[in-house]
Amino acid sequence: MSKLRMGVIGAGLWGNNHAHTFNVLPETELVGVCDLDEGRALKMKENFGAAEAFTDYRKLIASDDIDAVSVATPDFTHTPIILAALKADKHVLSEKPLATTVKEAEDIAEAAAVSKGKLMIDFHNRVNPILAQVRDMIQDGQIGLAKHGTARLSNTTFVPFEMLSWAAKSSALWFLGSHLVDVLRFILADEVTRVYAVARSGTLSAGGVDTKDFHASILEFSKGTVVTMENSWILARDNPSLVDFKLEFVGEKGQIQADPTHSGGLRRIVDGGMKFNDYIGMTPTGATRIGGFVQESIARFVDSVVRDVPLLADANDGLANTRVLAAIEESVASGIPVTIG
Amino acid sequence: MSKLRMGVIGAGLWGNNHAHTFNVLPETELVGVCDLDEGRALKMKENFGAAEAFTDYRKLIASDDIDAVSVATPDFTHTPIILAALKADKHVLSEKPLATTVKEAEDIAEAAAVSKGKLMIDFHNRVNPILAQVRDMIQDGQIGLAKHGTARLSNTTFVPFEMLSWAAKSSALWFLGSHLVDVLRFILADEVTRVYAVARSGTLSAGGVDTKDFHASILEFSKGTVVTMENSWILARDNPSLVDFKLEFVGEKGQIQADPTHSGGLRRIVDGGMKFNDYIGMTPTGATRIGGFVQESIARFVDSVVRDVPLLADANDGLANTRVLAAIEESVASGIPVTIG
Amino acid sequence: MSKLRMGVIGAGLWGNNHAHTFNVLPETELVGVCDLDEGRALKMKENFGAAEAFTDYRKLIASDDIDAVSVATPDFTHTPIILAALKADKHVLSEKPLATTVKEAEDIAEAAAVSKGKLMIDFHNRVNPILAQVRDMIQDGQIGLAKHGTARLSNTTFVPFEMLSWAAKSSALWFLGSHLVDVLRFILADEVTRVYAVARSGTLSAGGVDTKDFHASILEFSKGTVVTMENSWILARDNPSLVDFKLEFVGEKGQIQADPTHSGGLRRIVDGGMKFNDYIGMTPTGATRIGGFVQESIARFVDSVVRDVPLLADANDGLANTRVLAAIEESVASGIPVTIG
Amino acid sequence: MSKLRMGVIGAGLWGNNHAHTFNVLPETELVGVCDLDEGRALKMKENFGAAEAFTDYRKLIASDDIDAVSVATPDFTHTPIILAALKADKHVLSEKPLATTVKEAEDIAEAAAVSKGKLMIDFHNRVNPILAQVRDMIQDGQIGLAKHGTARLSNTTFVPFEMLSWAAKSSALWFLGSHLVDVLRFILADEVTRVYAVARSGTLSAGGVDTKDFHASILEFSKGTVVTMENSWILARDNPSLVDFKLEFVGEKGQIQADPTHSGGLRRIVDGGMKFNDYIGMTPTGATRIGGFVQESIARFVDSVVRDVPLLADANDGLANTRVLAAIEESVASGIPVTIG
Repeated sequence: MSKLRMGVIGAGLWGNNHAHTFNVLPETELVGVCDLDEGRALKMKENFGAAEAFTDYRKLIASDDIDAVSVATPDFTHTPIILAALKADKHVLSEKPLATTVKEAEDIAEAAAVSKGKLMIDFHNRVNPILAQVRDMIQDGQIGLAKHGTARLSNTTFVPFEMLSWAAKSSALWFLGSHLVDVLRFILADEVTRVYAVARSGTLSAGGVDTKDFHASILEFSKGTVVTMENSWILARDNPSLVDFKLEFVGEKGQIQADPTHSGGLRRIVDGGMKFNDYIGMTPTGATRIGGFVQESIARFVDSVVRDVPLLADANDGLANTRVLAAIEESVASGIPVTIG
Repeated sequence: MSKLRMGVIGAGLWGNNHAHTFNVLPETELVGVCDLDEGRALKMKENFGAAEAFTDYRKLIASDDIDAVSVATPDFTHTPIILAALKADKHVLSEKPLATTVKEAEDIAEAAAVSKGKLMIDFHNRVNPILAQVRDMIQDGQIGLAKHGTARLSNTTFVPFEMLSWAAKSSALWFLGSHLVDVLRFILADEVTRVYAVARSGTLSAGGVDTKDFHASILEFSKGTVVTMENSWILARDNPSLVDFKLEFVGEKGQIQADPTHSGGLRRIVDGGMKFNDYIGMTPTGATRIGGFVQESIARFVDSVVRDVPLLADANDGLANTRVLAAIEESVASGIPVTIG
Repeated sequence: MSKLRMGVIGAGLWGNNHAHTFNVLPETELVGVCDLDEGRALKMKENFGAAEAFTDYRKLIASDDIDAVSVATPDFTHTPIILAALKADKHVLSEKPLATTVKEAEDIAEAAAVSKGKLMIDFHNRVNPILAQVRDMIQDGQIGLAKHGTARLSNTTFVPFEMLSWAAKSSALWFLGSHLVDVLRFILADEVTRVYAVARSGTLSAGGVDTKDFHASILEFSKGTVVTMENSWILARDNPSLVDFKLEFVGEKGQIQADPTHSGGLRRIVDGGMKFNDYIGMTPTGATRIGGFVQESIARFVDSVVRDVPLLADANDGLANTRVLAAIEESVASGIPVTIG
Repeated sequence: MSKLRMGVIGAGLWGNNHAHTFNVLPETELVGVCDLDEGRALKMKENFGAAEAFTDYRKLIASDDIDAVSVATPDFTHTPIILAALKADKHVLSEKPLATTVKEAEDIAEAAAVSKGKLMIDFHNRVNPILAQVRDMIQDGQIGLAKHGTARLSNTTFVPFEMLSWAAKSSALWFLGSHLVDVLRFILADEVTRVYAVARSGTLSAGGVDTKDFHASILEFSKGTVVTMENSWILARDNPSLVDFKLEFVGEKGQIQADPTHSGGLRRIVDGGMKFNDYIGMTPTGATRIGGFVQESIARFVDSVVRDVPLLADANDGLANTRVLAAIEESVASGIPVTIG
């Protein structure tokens, strides 16, 4: 069997994850890499032994040597790349969120419907070992209908102030809430029908990053579940973990509490206080195997293309996700609840 | 110095706490007890060595042998008792919530303003060792302005189904939210200006208790703090604790997390799984001393009457509290946010 | 009734706790204070409104105006003070450990047996709300016989390096292990019959405090319980809590886990990382009441003298405690187990 | 490249793990399975599509169609199987512990030294995501020399009473302590030089399983580290987790705390109380990939044979492990410390 020939667009942290995974998986071959910054593109080409480096994504997509592309560029740049790749009938694995406006997400969903290429959104928390179990428990009916819940996915100020160069063009809502809304839709197997949200500014803008500090939202789902959601970028800098991810459901006959980041299963106490180390899905694999759920999600895209198994998350998941985030922003602006769909 | 002569109205769990405290404190003497059920009243009289038992609160209030009264009857019965006592210029310690309608709370506040008697609302969490420290930290500016927060005060289904005979006339919002709204006002030293809330029914009513399962609310305070609040009566029955009380604030320069019930500082693992024991403020005191914050709150009322120190919580605190709870109910009914004051 | 007239010897942190408590309790009156450092003695006299300040404990003991004394001097100085007070038939409340050699503890126990004065050792963890409950559960048979257990009472390096001027004359074993051995004897209502221990040096001595870094011990009790015990003074400096106190028992039909310091019921995340605040028994009391178990323990001494209730911990408790600690040191020196009694 | 042809001896839970892994890995082919119980052997053959089922391990080992064998039989049966396989120059992956007497372990180590076959002991916790990180931190010097530590690996009574048919021929020490001693040697990269241990019986024997309830040990390592270790089989049945695994090291400049089973990152509260779900290394992989560290350990054996990378744990690791466990038993029997090597 010939290998699936991959191109990776975006040479940041996440693009490198994709490239590594395509190098290790037996079904794939990393052929091309692309970044606006030629130096980064060449370095990535060299690091992973790719055949070719590009600075124009259109050329990578046009290459006959490439069957499928990964899009790992900043959130707000996804749309034209994905549309071009789908138009060329290439398979596409897009980082999340799919797009940052409902119009763009709709255009992509339409293009995906007519392309010969498959489109997967890399909502990797669907294979997070904790969250996949939560979904199974809920869908098995272990707690009955989830009546209410709370969901937090927030970062310390390190992320907007130091980690992300384009933080001002995003927010905790788009950067983190996109994951969380998808996780909620996935676990509950349900759609959000109504949202209300409050947001505030001040702390980030005072530090030079002109975006919202946080969004606090109430989401109502079609089957009756009510979830309060927090997405904040102003958690205390010296938090034991960069990320605080918590999820709880209270059901008709039981509760489930998930805490992938602050459970403290591995703690260091050194200069600067207690730190929680991440260890979920971080199996220390031998060189011929991928390890951990983040790479597993990428492998699921390959499974889908090569073996025709269902996509982990498709264009409609990306569109529904964007609709919820856009409705939350609309509620903040208008001060009243917003109905979806 | 002659002792403050006390009457306690209501011979339930809480009335007994009051009676015990007045018996132990050196400044007070338990003179009368009252309950609609004569048997319970007589038993309480006997247990605590009170001089007289009543079945009509008006007679207790009218007694010249009584200087001050405790009102520890069900929530919805407070108003006429408090009004009668204030009219008789007796000092009053009322259990929370002060009243269950804004009109009643306003009437009480007016009566308190002209009475020679003092009125304290027994919001005992103001002397809860954890929450009192949280207030001090916030008011000392240790985390700057609290930008956002989450607050949970919820019970397992045991409380509405088995502990409280009058659950259907109350709800997690009135029974628990009254505490939590007071704690938030106290800690933040701020007023709620706007609320939005969603509630659902079904689980409790299916079990014969016709009230809401839970309220999920977003509260906005005048200085800018945004708090999401959960009050539920449907937590899983086999929870390690009957009560789940959690409070977190994310401030401009730090975070505070309080967990008075589920911190797990004392765990038993026996038949039926892990249980968290309560131990906060439960100093095992000798027979001549009260122990724990619940009794301390009652003693603060005595301090206020005997030594003229400020009330722990006054009629205006009770009124403001009731206004927030009523606004939450109004938001649930109307489906839109409600502005207060 | 005339008040019990108290003298407090030692003007350090703990002496001040005693003085405050005797000032607040209605049964006592603080008459004299004593410290080798005249300035500290005078300051304490002034702060608490005592009648007289001493620099020689013999003069305080000899005073006819003093009925009872508190001994709150460094561990290794207790013996002559206690012996002198008992010989003068004064009641004595001694800080723990009673003494630092078995010979001294035996002398004190003999003196106590013939004195008209009562002697209590201030093992205040016997009224720690968590540990008092653990004892009740064990003694109620809730987990059957405790088959095995683990016990930790350790400090960060802050205590030997910065808090305690006389650290080199003590160790985690004597400073903390004295508490822990008493807690184990109290909870299990049993005696240690055999010990084995290993200790190491190096970290503290490199920092100029010439004492052991830690003791790791195995204690066997007469009814069969086996407990591994850790007393360390080298916990990481940036620990969320200065003290780490943990206790667990695995019994024939259940387990109990106690964690009075690291349960995290109150957490701050500020510069320097996560910190756990203490809140156990810290009821914020009004000015006429003591609050918290540390002061309650002192009040129990007063109860015993004034109302003739049993002592919280007597000379035999102090002696048995010292015997266990001395046996642990003997085991470390000899490298083999040591049988007691 | 031709595939490595595998035989699996033992059709229990663990043998099935091996069989599944050899089926999924691209480098291996499951050829033969073996169990004394012919029905189980045939069922395993069918489930995994193996070519042949055996009831005599000697025949499986003698087969020319088999290059390497997995030994997943009860602990006390390993030695003759491993010796026969090594003598036949087959590669061997043995479950832990290698053997249950020092003599047997020595014989195996000698045989391994002269065989053309490789021998790996399946100490899979060496690739447990948490413990692998702890080793890296320690070996990187992040906390300096580990001065002291505590280690627990214990089970509820479910394991000896219901899960393990041969519990009376093993104990928590051999079943769990074998893992824990290996983890300590691996993390510290050091050898145990001296042990002291206390054990008790009664609870298990009263229930019909005639073995020790628990072992409490103190281990001294050559570089100076002192570790107290608990291996118990009598944890409370209704524990939130079947296994309690905890490990802590206090070093010269920091602490590390690992809690792979009770960290509570995924909690269910249902009938019977709170339960902690396992999720470490449990990535939900697609059908062509193994997932989780338990299977990764098995894959490491394949890596070693196929690519000649170092063994995860070799015969000397197995021998050193058995020596420590045997010394602990000797200390229990003699009542004094035992020096090793």
